[in-house]
Amino acid sequence: MFLGDVPDQLGAKTAQGIVDWRPDWCLGQMRLPNCQADLGIKDISIEEAAKNGAKTMVIGIVNSGGFLPEHWIKSVIEAMEAGMDIASGLHIRLSSIPELEQAADQLGRNLYDVRHPSEDVPTGKGTPRTGKRLLAVGTDCSVGKMYTTLAIEKEMKARGIKSDFRATGQTGIFIAGTGISIDAVVADFISGAVEVLSPENDDDHWDIIEGQGSLFHPSFAGVSLGLLHGAQADALILCHEPTRKHMRGIPHQPLPDLKECMELNLVTARLTNKNARFVGISVNTSGLSVEEGDKLLKDLEAEFELPCVDAYRTGVASIVDAL
Amino acid sequence: MFLGDVPDQLGAKTAQGIVDWRPDWCLGQMRLPNCQADLGIKDISIEEAAKNGAKTMVIGIVNSGGFLPEHWIKSVIEAMEAGMDIASGLHIRLSSIPELEQAADQLGRNLYDVRHPSEDVPTGKGTPRTGKRLLAVGTDCSVGKMYTTLAIEKEMKARGIKSDFRATGQTGIFIAGTGISIDAVVADFISGAVEVLSPENDDDHWDIIEGQGSLFHPSFAGVSLGLLHGAQADALILCHEPTRKHMRGIPHQPLPDLKECMELNLVTARLTNKNARFVGISVNTSGLSVEEGDKLLKDLEAEFELPCVDAYRTGVASIVDAL
Repeated sequence: MFLGDVPDQLGAKTAQGIVDWRPDWCLGQMRLPNCQADLGIKDISIEEAAKNGAKTMVIGIVNSGGFLPEHWIKSVIEAMEAGMDIASGLHIRLSSIPELEQAADQLGRNLYDVRHPSEDVPTGKGTPRTGKRLLAVGTDCSVGKMYTTLAIEKEMKARGIKSDFRATGQTGIFIAGTGISIDAVVADFISGAVEVLSPENDDDHWDIIEGQGSLFHPSFAGVSLGLLHGAQADALILCHEPTRKHMRGIPHQPLPDLKECMELNLVTARLTNKNARFVGISVNTSGLSVEEGDKLLKDLEAEFELPCVDAYRTGVASIVDAL
Repeated sequence: MFLGDVPDQLGAKTAQGIVDWRPDWCLGQMRLPNCQADLGIKDISIEEAAKNGAKTMVIGIVNSGGFLPEHWIKSVIEAMEAGMDIASGLHIRLSSIPELEQAADQLGRNLYDVRHPSEDVPTGKGTPRTGKRLLAVGTDCSVGKMYTTLAIEKEMKARGIKSDFRATGQTGIFIAGTGISIDAVVADFISGAVEVLSPENDDDHWDIIEGQGSLFHPSFAGVSLGLLHGAQADALILCHEPTRKHMRGIPHQPLPDLKECMELNLVTARLTNKNARFVGISVNTSGLSVEEGDKLLKDLEAEFELPCVDAYRTGVASIVDAL
């Protein structure tokens, strides 16, 4: 896990997600001086990582613009020289950086850009398909949609329910080992990409589809709507972060209230699945005290008559029970 | 206007739009044997076109997949040899076809792919901006949004009202000479592209923004929603084709009714402009008799208490009056 010198913990969000969900895959973190993130795994040099069998250096960071800082290039080339492939979820393609492309060429290494869909997808059709689907939607971006859907897949698999997490963003793709970064698809193909991502399946199989953005986010609502239509979700889960003061990155934009958010998601989801309904609410209560969090979940359960969980604190068992 | 040998009139839709709205720009059409489209302008050879001063050959066709048939390449190269640049609205980039790129290189000609946004755009922010904006939305794709918005711009300009048509699709871009093909933007940047396309302006200036798709189209609703949010429209016009049996290209999908369609557009438009409202309905009545069309417009006016027009048959004066 290469973290460069990101200025805060959030900058290492992608690497952190991989460490949280696939700890066995992660041999260590490599940080440059002044790096302000820490994944809680051991610091390791490139040399040591290679000796321990690391096959890939993951550039597991997020930054605005999705670029690769120039002073990181040296480390990335060193990793290739030590025998590793490179994987990145940045907007910029690794192969568009001449030094990296040249090194990969000379050394015979692979550059993986997980954010860039590698297959052509058709436009969406909305044709009903077999199998069941669950989609996480949100009041905002970064409110726990990936965490919640990964937790549901884990709980289902533990119960022997056929299910697959379907990744729609860079971190989810690293964790699942496959997926399509929906926000990087050409706009005409958003719903089509989701149809490809969650194809027809056994009647008792659940695709647990990671959501993106929010219908109420002025930047990304188009992505969220195409995802909703392509998913043809039978079951929706609303994800929410109760301490958020405004839509992420948009100080002038208030959050929708939960009821309004659920209503718009239902109205629009029913274009491609008349039976779409909410089956639970997943709240990230980490910004509240335990008492406040418990009270909020109880209040929401009373108001919406749905299982309400904090996927991290309470787990998602009650939602899977309901399903 | 190069039409190749498209199998029907609809295949020449882009060229037809240019001829309809910018007849002075069009010196003639060039058709291959078995071409089933006719723009109603004179047939002209490449040699003759060049002699008459044609600067650009426009590949003005649409086909499923957006490719360039191989047997057209010869004509395109001939046009470059005769001195012309080439412009296309296809999905495929002209420069990705080796013979064309090589010829353009050798001859010093330009290959214009109007469908491919040439500038980087930021993500949308939804920040209110000065100037007024009108957006055409639809019950479906291809129901007259471009025609209606071009007609409104023309009517406004004739009255001395400051206005600009803002093209969001390939045909509109050819007509306006500028614009961004919104369906070809990366999904994360849909609303951002529309914000760039219709920047802040004088308080009494109208941007007349071409719409795309429909919130009720399972393939393209994400594009339509991002466009709606980016446009921050003060005024919406609903475009409709009353003989359409199902959503374009999706036989199992019924059209929304007009009221439902207007309601969802209003609810979602108000995320970025609290004052968004409908100012008119534009119906393509060409599939009805004159009597039926007149009756429909009258009935709709009574039901919705808005000016209802057929932009082609009745003109859009009543909508501009209301604005």
